[in-house]
Amino acid sequence: MRHQVVIVGGGFGGLYATQALKRADVEITLVDRRNFHLFQPLLYQVATGALSAGEIAAPLRYVLNRQKNASVLLAEVVDIHPATREVHLKDGSHLAYDTLILATGSTHHYFGHPEWAQFAPGLKTVEDAAEIRTRVLLAFERAERETDPEVRRALLTFVVVGGGPTGVELAGALGEISRDTLRHDFRRINPAEANIFLVEGTDRVLPSYPPRLSAAAEKSLISLGVQTRAGALVTNIDECGVTVKTGTSETSIPATTVLWAAGVQASPLGKLLADRTGATLDRAGRVNVNPDLSIDSHPEILIIGDLAHFEQDGKQVPGVAPTAMQMGRYVAGLITKRLRNERVAPFHYWDKGSLATIGRNRAVANIAGFQFSGHFAWLTWLFVHLLYIVEFQSRVLIAFQWAYDYFTFNRGSRLITGEWAEHHMPPSADAQTCKPPRPSSQTRPAARL
Amino acid sequence: MRHQVVIVGGGFGGLYATQALKRADVEITLVDRRNFHLFQPLLYQVATGALSAGEIAAPLRYVLNRQKNASVLLAEVVDIHPATREVHLKDGSHLAYDTLILATGSTHHYFGHPEWAQFAPGLKTVEDAAEIRTRVLLAFERAERETDPEVRRALLTFVVVGGGPTGVELAGALGEISRDTLRHDFRRINPAEANIFLVEGTDRVLPSYPPRLSAAAEKSLISLGVQTRAGALVTNIDECGVTVKTGTSETSIPATTVLWAAGVQASPLGKLLADRTGATLDRAGRVNVNPDLSIDSHPEILIIGDLAHFEQDGKQVPGVAPTAMQMGRYVAGLITKRLRNERVAPFHYWDKGSLATIGRNRAVANIAGFQFSGHFAWLTWLFVHLLYIVEFQSRVLIAFQWAYDYFTFNRGSRLITGEWAEHHMPPSADAQTCKPPRPSSQTRPAARL
Repeated sequence: MRHQVVIVGGGFGGLYATQALKRADVEITLVDRRNFHLFQPLLYQVATGALSAGEIAAPLRYVLNRQKNASVLLAEVVDIHPATREVHLKDGSHLAYDTLILATGSTHHYFGHPEWAQFAPGLKTVEDAAEIRTRVLLAFERAERETDPEVRRALLTFVVVGGGPTGVELAGALGEISRDTLRHDFRRINPAEANIFLVEGTDRVLPSYPPRLSAAAEKSLISLGVQTRAGALVTNIDECGVTVKTGTSETSIPATTVLWAAGVQASPLGKLLADRTGATLDRAGRVNVNPDLSIDSHPEILIIGDLAHFEQDGKQVPGVAPTAMQMGRYVAGLITKRLRNERVAPFHYWDKGSLATIGRNRAVANIAGFQFSGHFAWLTWLFVHLLYIVEFQSRVLIAFQWAYDYFTFNRGSRLITGEWAEHHMPPSADAQTCKPPRPSSQTRPAARL
Repeated sequence: MRHQVVIVGGGFGGLYATQALKRADVEITLVDRRNFHLFQPLLYQVATGALSAGEIAAPLRYVLNRQKNASVLLAEVVDIHPATREVHLKDGSHLAYDTLILATGSTHHYFGHPEWAQFAPGLKTVEDAAEIRTRVLLAFERAERETDPEVRRALLTFVVVGGGPTGVELAGALGEISRDTLRHDFRRINPAEANIFLVEGTDRVLPSYPPRLSAAAEKSLISLGVQTRAGALVTNIDECGVTVKTGTSETSIPATTVLWAAGVQASPLGKLLADRTGATLDRAGRVNVNPDLSIDSHPEILIIGDLAHFEQDGKQVPGVAPTAMQMGRYVAGLITKRLRNERVAPFHYWDKGSLATIGRNRAVANIAGFQFSGHFAWLTWLFVHLLYIVEFQSRVLIAFQWAYDYFTFNRGSRLITGEWAEHHMPPSADAQTCKPPRPSSQTRPAARL
């Protein structure tokens, strides 16, 4: 029987590891709870109605259907038995491995306040994206129906918590939605009057970027109508809004829509692995790995992507897609070389630079020592993202959709769907809970008000 | 105050009526429970993974954003008060009208067996389409994990109930999915071994078409591996499959996936209108309308699209998109002429012909007395559907996606999502309920079996 490689997680790490093992003399089983690979860097565009989920998702079976040494298993891993080299699946069956690659990534983390999750959804899955899209669009719909100016103001206030790349992208997209996309769509409200806040705990947005680019990003955000609040810690989130603390003063921002782009925590599989093997975790639950991405006393267990804590030059490598891809390719090479009894050099992260987009013609880039912003950075962002999308089809479709949206200022995928919407149809009573109740009123057909 | 037109329903009827009133001296309020217009004729392509929901949905506000005399209201109508000329919305508010246009269409009808709905979803909404897509894809995933040949056979059996255009399109797409799309995707099962049944109560598929085209459609279906069962009445549907009665003999088809494309019933608003005005309904709950699409003693209430029962030359006009569009334009003209006190001719349905597609290069057409099938009919179908899609953007995107899929045999939007999936992950216990239970087994990594 050939060397069995079990890979858990079909994100950038797991998928690139699988593909890089194409010519290796191994049998690969890629296990994922979902049947598709998600191009996560563009998920915010689904959340903001610019793309459909299907356009950034590629079925794992389709991507791997010509790779004869790989099979895909739609299943959830619930336990790891390192002694017998088996993973246990939720349905009670077991899966034996010779090498195990864990690539289950990360999830949201509400800093010890799990109760905030219901008021401030994060952005990790296609379901998250659909819910955020529904909440944002429905807030405008409810504002259109609302007669109480105070409630309407809360409905037209959007708070994004976390000023990293995702938070900046979300806030920028909200700016564009309110200023451009919806410009002619409503009759009673002016969507451009929406208040968009970007709240960041450190002293500037994009804290992982050089200060010059943070300043450029902030300037772009302001031009899109986004109000940035740096050095502001969130102390409470509920159905009425967000409370932030700046220095010693606390202020509350009444807001119906709050989006979470702050904390991430490693997948719970890290904790499980620590329990089973004695591997150590960092504060965010990531597994501390050896220079070859394995763990102590278990060279056959490899951790890649957001689940791994790997330091280089005294700094942790960033939790982004290129890191996961490089780690995926590295462990594929490691396995191949081990089978040939060759020596393997430690993993080395090659920093290709970083890119964040704020909106049309607005982005910041830090590539190979060059820092630039504006139109050229945005074109670079566009080019790099199109280049990396797994499926050719999605790549061309997205290029087309973007080109169209660019010239028309439209966002075509503005569907309000799902259960959340059913309970929050305009004008919904819950928008009133932050105020004393008032009687329902007679609505005349939407006249010019 | 200008003449107030309230239009309920943003489908083909309601949307075309709104747009045709663009230059009329009226104020239009278009009320819909959803924020988008759905291009229903292509919904089966979402259900079968060829398109994303966003690609066939156009936000109503976007479509109408330049039409100054129209506003869109995201709301649900729960009552009609013809005496005071008001519709009541779910949230308790009222909407006054001078003319009311009801265009709320139709929904599924399980012939007095509402309990079948849970086992055999129909196809009317984007949520329906997502559920059907999930059920179909998950059936293959579960079959891949299933070791019991009998259960696996049921998992690979798909029954489409109803041989009209939607049933034929669904069955044909299932044939293509199993024969082409998934050809290389699985390692243990051969998707081409899937059994696809199309069950029709009358003596042939596409009973509303000329017999020659029914025969051509059946031939195409058979070439895609679909087994047609005409003259077969469904007597039971449960979690184990479908029971059909042909003549005097009953047979049961063990099947995990059953899709409903048989009965439709008018929207419940028809019944409500009948209760409030004394209007009469046909057996399917459609409102019997006057030659000008109004109802007796209420010339200001107009019924269009699938909600209307209108006879021409002793035959009811078909419940298809072109009918709804023509009725929408007609009532717009009626309102305009009434305001000018002009006489109005009765509605006349212009039969442009009918088209049904079975799969790539396979369709049947009955246009202006010409009956044809095969490649040319398919190209006609393609052309007509692209022509009608409301938004320019969707039109081009879909053209592109189709072109790509045509050459690659791929279907890009194969996402398994939603709650149903969570409770039916492979190998799920419920596939076993039609058989005595067996112990869970050890799964080796997917070896060549």
